[in-house]
Amino acid sequence: MTGLQTQDSEAGVTLHDIDSAAIRIRGYAFRTPAYRAYSERDLSLKLESFQPVRSFKIRGASNKILLIPPKEREERGVITASSGNHGLAVAYVSNLLGIKATIVLPDTVIKDKLEWIQSLGARTVLYGKQQDERARKAEEIRQNEGQIFVQPFNDPEIVAGQGTCALEILEDVPDVRTIFVPIGGGGLISGIALCTKLSHKEVKVIGVQPEGSASMYESWEKGELTTIKESKTIADGLSVRRPGDITYSLVKRYVDDIVLVSDDEILSATRQLLRKEHLLAEPSGAAALAGFLKSKKTGKSVVVVSGGNISREVLAKVIAD
Amino acid sequence: MTGLQTQDSEAGVTLHDIDSAAIRIRGYAFRTPAYRAYSERDLSLKLESFQPVRSFKIRGASNKILLIPPKEREERGVITASSGNHGLAVAYVSNLLGIKATIVLPDTVIKDKLEWIQSLGARTVLYGKQQDERARKAEEIRQNEGQIFVQPFNDPEIVAGQGTCALEILEDVPDVRTIFVPIGGGGLISGIALCTKLSHKEVKVIGVQPEGSASMYESWEKGELTTIKESKTIADGLSVRRPGDITYSLVKRYVDDIVLVSDDEILSATRQLLRKEHLLAEPSGAAALAGFLKSKKTGKSVVVVSGGNISREVLAKVIAD
Repeated sequence: MTGLQTQDSEAGVTLHDIDSAAIRIRGYAFRTPAYRAYSERDLSLKLESFQPVRSFKIRGASNKILLIPPKEREERGVITASSGNHGLAVAYVSNLLGIKATIVLPDTVIKDKLEWIQSLGARTVLYGKQQDERARKAEEIRQNEGQIFVQPFNDPEIVAGQGTCALEILEDVPDVRTIFVPIGGGGLISGIALCTKLSHKEVKVIGVQPEGSASMYESWEKGELTTIKESKTIADGLSVRRPGDITYSLVKRYVDDIVLVSDDEILSATRQLLRKEHLLAEPSGAAALAGFLKSKKTGKSVVVVSGGNISREVLAKVIAD
Repeated sequence: MTGLQTQDSEAGVTLHDIDSAAIRIRGYAFRTPAYRAYSERDLSLKLESFQPVRSFKIRGASNKILLIPPKEREERGVITASSGNHGLAVAYVSNLLGIKATIVLPDTVIKDKLEWIQSLGARTVLYGKQQDERARKAEEIRQNEGQIFVQPFNDPEIVAGQGTCALEILEDVPDVRTIFVPIGGGGLISGIALCTKLSHKEVKVIGVQPEGSASMYESWEKGELTTIKESKTIADGLSVRRPGDITYSLVKRYVDDIVLVSDDEILSATRQLLRKEHLLAEPSGAAALAGFLKSKKTGKSVVVVSGGNISREVLAKVIAD
């Protein structure tokens, strides 16, 4: 972490927050490798798919939960409404800490994922099909039972946790020129961009978003927080109709560019990781590679492979071609 | 590595050799995690499939090559005849060291693997279909050109390198009772069993071998080195017709039991890792899990997931069911 200067940001997250998160989350999140790609020149792959929960979400979730005073988290427990990687991360951290976690899932959740979360001792509540229905259900439970809500992205402590990923990239790939990061709600890229720009301002941070779920892209283009009508993409982990205000303001301030990619490009990147690199990535995890592949290259790049929790159905699609 | 006592073994490998290998190979091999399994109780997965070359072979290959005096390895280069993970590991280490590597491959080698090895700057020679033909070809080249031959398993320095895997297991899973390890030529289990028994003699080490390639099992049963007539298994990385004398003597001395598993059991274990744990393993890498699944459990177990370099064809088989 040599060379990092602490500096306050507008959005309430500082380099110091990221640095202290890195110490806090040891023993929860894994220090993932940045491996040189075999299939592309001048590219390293930051393998968040190697985390114990197979996604970067463990960084933010562990930072957030560890910042709740022990007595409070033990008495109240935590709740979240994410059906995906964030829910799994919250269940995992809660299991290690021995606290109660409630995860509200869609009633269409696949059996493997339900069992995985339940194997971590979390209480699961199946409700509705849409994220907003689940969020309302979680809020209703919270009001009755008093748990602490763990936001998936729009929270400075979540952003600080995700930012620890950049500390490792900048240490392990000191000659990096460009970092490609997938965008859903914007938690990961906010943390990475803030950490990178406050310490290595010459390094470019490029966001990658699916064409079918370009809510951050549209907000960034228009210069204001924008809700998109529909979000439809194979990269389910990046499907968000409206970015958070905190993550949007950090992206606006620190991100150099946002690249849109199609579902076909995302599937093809997932396939390249599987066949050429022997790495399992979910489409959201391969999206940054798709962005790299359609961008002009100048010098060394790092692509964040953000997760590996691919479903059987999507994996079959990847294999099929 | 607290609690390890150095003690000489019959086969010319000591705990001290493993301890010093662990220091030597830093920067080449990665310290892989041992993650708790989600799909089984009391089981941790030692993920050698997370190595930069996606297999444990990097441990032995880097230890061996780093023990060749720099001037000698730079002048002469190295050669090997393994088409698989060992060849890839030798190419990778040679690339990092900037020395010449020659890898003799079957003329039926798949294009992805050929490109991978070539992307590391290694010279590839395509020759024959059988391992013994390739070994003879490599020996012929070596006699003409003077490279140093890097054995895949029957070499004390390779065994010491593979043994570093046990140091990490014993440190990260201090309550382990049984370690399950796949057996091909026996390099990995020799190193792991020696390290384990000389430091934690109460921990059991169980070898797992495919029914169709039970050369170590038969040698161990008969009490003498045995060549099997035919080796036929989906776990191509474990296909060896005759164990080495060094690895055989270490297995005889330190391994508690050897379990045989069928190709169906291996495929099913590969499928379980993919679907339930979201981990990509090649059949050889999933074999130890297959052994665990058919064994009686007493207390905490560790299964070594030795590699993830699965071919498209086999992956399609895993998905198909």
